[in-house]
Amino acid sequence: MTKKVAVLAVNPVNGFGLFQYLEAFFENGIPFKTFSVAPTTHIKTNSGISLQTDDVVANLKGHENEYDALVFACGDAMPKFGENAGTPENQDMLAVIKAFGDNDKLIAGHCAGALLFDSAGIANGKQVALHPYIKAAVKSAIGTDEQSIVDGNIYTAQTENTVWTLIPKLLDALK
Amino acid sequence: MTKKVAVLAVNPVNGFGLFQYLEAFFENGIPFKTFSVAPTTHIKTNSGISLQTDDVVANLKGHENEYDALVFACGDAMPKFGENAGTPENQDMLAVIKAFGDNDKLIAGHCAGALLFDSAGIANGKQVALHPYIKAAVKSAIGTDEQSIVDGNIYTAQTENTVWTLIPKLLDALK
Repeated sequence: MTKKVAVLAVNPVNGFGLFQYLEAFFENGIPFKTFSVAPTTHIKTNSGISLQTDDVVANLKGHENEYDALVFACGDAMPKFGENAGTPENQDMLAVIKAFGDNDKLIAGHCAGALLFDSAGIANGKQVALHPYIKAAVKSAIGTDEQSIVDGNIYTAQTENTVWTLIPKLLDALK
Repeated sequence: MTKKVAVLAVNPVNGFGLFQYLEAFFENGIPFKTFSVAPTTHIKTNSGISLQTDDVVANLKGHENEYDALVFACGDAMPKFGENAGTPENQDMLAVIKAFGDNDKLIAGHCAGALLFDSAGIANGKQVALHPYIKAAVKSAIGTDEQSIVDGNIYTAQTENTVWTLIPKLLDALK
């Protein structure tokens, strides 16, 4: 049965990464809804293009059971995540990630995604792919140098440049 | 010297294709401006996400000399191009493509891009990469089965899935 996906987009988001997921879902008839990790649905790509998500992450919190899978689309918001971790949208994002993980739902993401999954404590002992610069920062998960890797319910890719290696496995699991 | 790029985005546009160009330009410090092939700057991706371009193609017409290169980002608008070829935005797009081509400026695009370049008469005798379904429709250019190909000033890729093979060559030419 086709699964319904919630897609998190940080602000700014890497459009190349985000739309690899979205166009693949669209072309394969996989229903999805996009949520900005921001106070409003109006966000920007790294490259400066304004786009609008369907909703904000605050409205996904508490409604995680309406979705079968979560995708985290990384972007230039993340290098400053450390100093912004306390904002409501970032706290909501971590809560949402934890809720999907605690229910063993499929969770996918690239670049800093695996570090968030690690922080939320939902990838303990699982192998993950992530940006080489932050591989050493992963605590409970196992950082790898793979372009992408699937370990149980955790689907991760190193960067937006390797998301294409993750997409076929993701589509197989979601169709 | 870094070149300035005008980027055409049809409506709807394939976001995966569009943002491969835009994020690469952004990360490499290549200035660009986006133009919708539509009456307004508000367009959608194939996947249904609303986004806003910097300007509309009507305002690029007559200002081609302000740019060094043109990129055509394909999308689901194109299968219906035949029946919509007469709209002001599509006529403006063809005029803009012709103006860049007539001045031997760098022109790049994927999927149906090469067919438009062929129609505008700016790729005569040049090898192009394009969607396999429309390879036979090319008249004055030479359709190939390559993932991407550069012939003189014409840079083309088969589909959004092979744009990544064109990006390094495009960046080399634009930096």
